[in-house]
Amino acid sequence: MAAGLPSPRNYLANAYPYRAGSHFLYLFGLPLQGAFGLWNGDEWMVLAPEPDPASALWHGPEPTLFELSQAMGCRVVPLGELATSVAGLAVQTLPAADFRTCAQQASFLGRPLVSGTLDPFDYPLADATVSLRLIHDDAAVEQMRSAVVATQAAHAAGMRATKPGLKESHVRAAMEAEITARDLTLAYGSIVTVHGEVLHNELHHHLITESDLLLADVGAESAGGFASDVTRTWPAKGTFSDTQRTLYNVVLQTQKDLIAAVKPGARYREIHMLALQRMGEGLVDVGILMGKVDDLVEEGAVSLFFPHGTGHLLGLDVHDMEDLGDRAGYAPGRQRTKNFKLRTLRLDRDLLPGMAVTIEPGFYQVPAILQHEDMGQDPKLKAMVNWSRLAEFADVRGIRIEDDVLVTATSHEVLTAAIPKEMSDVEAAMCA
Amino acid sequence: MAAGLPSPRNYLANAYPYRAGSHFLYLFGLPLQGAFGLWNGDEWMVLAPEPDPASALWHGPEPTLFELSQAMGCRVVPLGELATSVAGLAVQTLPAADFRTCAQQASFLGRPLVSGTLDPFDYPLADATVSLRLIHDDAAVEQMRSAVVATQAAHAAGMRATKPGLKESHVRAAMEAEITARDLTLAYGSIVTVHGEVLHNELHHHLITESDLLLADVGAESAGGFASDVTRTWPAKGTFSDTQRTLYNVVLQTQKDLIAAVKPGARYREIHMLALQRMGEGLVDVGILMGKVDDLVEEGAVSLFFPHGTGHLLGLDVHDMEDLGDRAGYAPGRQRTKNFKLRTLRLDRDLLPGMAVTIEPGFYQVPAILQHEDMGQDPKLKAMVNWSRLAEFADVRGIRIEDDVLVTATSHEVLTAAIPKEMSDVEAAMCA
Repeated sequence: MAAGLPSPRNYLANAYPYRAGSHFLYLFGLPLQGAFGLWNGDEWMVLAPEPDPASALWHGPEPTLFELSQAMGCRVVPLGELATSVAGLAVQTLPAADFRTCAQQASFLGRPLVSGTLDPFDYPLADATVSLRLIHDDAAVEQMRSAVVATQAAHAAGMRATKPGLKESHVRAAMEAEITARDLTLAYGSIVTVHGEVLHNELHHHLITESDLLLADVGAESAGGFASDVTRTWPAKGTFSDTQRTLYNVVLQTQKDLIAAVKPGARYREIHMLALQRMGEGLVDVGILMGKVDDLVEEGAVSLFFPHGTGHLLGLDVHDMEDLGDRAGYAPGRQRTKNFKLRTLRLDRDLLPGMAVTIEPGFYQVPAILQHEDMGQDPKLKAMVNWSRLAEFADVRGIRIEDDVLVTATSHEVLTAAIPKEMSDVEAAMCA
Repeated sequence: MAAGLPSPRNYLANAYPYRAGSHFLYLFGLPLQGAFGLWNGDEWMVLAPEPDPASALWHGPEPTLFELSQAMGCRVVPLGELATSVAGLAVQTLPAADFRTCAQQASFLGRPLVSGTLDPFDYPLADATVSLRLIHDDAAVEQMRSAVVATQAAHAAGMRATKPGLKESHVRAAMEAEITARDLTLAYGSIVTVHGEVLHNELHHHLITESDLLLADVGAESAGGFASDVTRTWPAKGTFSDTQRTLYNVVLQTQKDLIAAVKPGARYREIHMLALQRMGEGLVDVGILMGKVDDLVEEGAVSLFFPHGTGHLLGLDVHDMEDLGDRAGYAPGRQRTKNFKLRTLRLDRDLLPGMAVTIEPGFYQVPAILQHEDMGQDPKLKAMVNWSRLAEFADVRGIRIEDDVLVTATSHEVLTAAIPKEMSDVEAAMCA
């Protein structure tokens, strides 16, 4: 279980801001560069680099191993003892985020370097880790709440900062400044774009025009490393157009119904199916889709406009434990299907109290889907769309509304409820 | 020559903002994830991943290899042809910043994985690269100027935002927002701290108090990847105290004298020696050091308070080409000495027109140096400091003044001259 090493940006000493591995953070709570955690059969111990007096000039004084031991409540020994500590043990491990540490781990455990996928030998450790990290205790929830406070400020600042004629990057800067000012980091690369139809758009160079919707998917990470993950979509000029209003309402009503369905025992895939159902109903009402809703869902017509999953686990990673593949998101015995409407679903578990998930339906006009040549080869799908009606919604390229939802003992709590999403609240926040 | 791959933050899909390798950027100008550049004996060619239609949904449409070829003015072939392209060639290479790409390179070239140090086999390519990148052409200087525009805005914003009672992170956020808003990135991790005596302090959690100096070392990177690197130091409450004024003046006058010495033919180590000389004179005038200046420099007494080098090369990396070790910073036949006053000097070349360097003297009271037990064992050094006089300057923990200087045909140009550094200008900027 490695904390991991800093990742160089353009050379070794110019590194990205250090972020310790989530498994290590979960177990030991401190971002100790280069450290490893080890269960040696009797106890958890941490093997950490000893403080380097020469680095004090550059980075300030470092805690001693004894002080670290006090802080973490376990034995801490010099990193040099790693080889002898693992000698003769059949040590399971989990991949570190950075390749340098992966290679180190492989080397000292005498195992081949496996990257990106989990070695079956490590499945028991992975599954044990999942069972711990799936359920958030009070301290974890407190961390998530503290991240949300910053995220809320960021979205409010973004709404205030948006003006036609500015670059997307201007709004992004206003949002991220709220998070940085609180001495927190971003849980993931911000999406702040008038091209919300590019789902993970990380470009911010477009000018915002009068008729645009701006989609902002921005979340802070707490001091302890817990993520928040929130998307709001607002109109560049401060008021939604009629067409924007119509489709925003379809997404918003869908999102509310989905949140209402979050409770212990609910199967997340059913919530995703409900999303497709509600989005289908909405798009039929609006006149963009034609036919029976069940057929539209089944044939994938709804997924043309909502091509991603309804949400994912949330915790120390924004897609929690995605480094373990679907072992975290999918319950034992369940696996992803290749079906268009389900293949991007990252989560299919029965919800339990203490789990945190995102609920994030959306509507997108993705050229790569709608103008893809495959569409022409699927006349049935093509016939389900009222293309002339769709053309009236040219000022809606992408809408997503995303909240963080904690499963409680009997129901749920929306951790991000205070961030405006009703259209009137959004419009008011933009004038604030 | 690799562009390199994105570095994962906590899992593969949650990566740090991508930054292509500087050597690749220098030669090909585009940040092409996963691409390699190859001189095959006849021509430069780029081997690039082909656009993935499945990724268009998430990341938008990608240029074709033909379009890339047009943009870069060289042949571009699919990455899959790499193995056959290098077969039979004794290919020299340079290390990529990220370990994943280093491992890839080693594997397809059939060479051991060398990380952190240069393989002597690659010295000729390294030296050729250095000779190209040392001298900036007009396009490169234009990039540096564009970075400076954002850096200037950042420092102005930082001066305006500083108030006692706020966290350092508040000022950092205001500074970085100016850079982010212009859709640019940071050339390095910002230092914004009231503990300037920790040279690479990347913590931002301290509260700013009335008597503090705030040291801000923040620089933007241009759209093409060129760095700016600027440090200013200003008083928390908007006006320098008398003690701060005294020592700020020592550093500022020194910095001006050093800048005046920048011209073609000047040896950078002599500029560093001049820095020690001038700082020594200043600290004797102030009464902190006692004795003959030559002795104070020679014995290392000046370096107690100015323990780092006067500056470094600047270009596509903030410490330009530091990935090549001292082959870039040190002229052939020169090497670093272990001497306390020279060991941290990153640059010892005779300056040439088109080189860009930083000039960044400073004054610091570093506990790791002044309270280090070695001091007690060096009574000669200890006797050179007037400790009671030094104690009067408790409100000066760290001052650094850093500008980016371009060597011109006959003299120099300070690229960052518009950023306030005279005390009256700094005080005025803080009230702006």
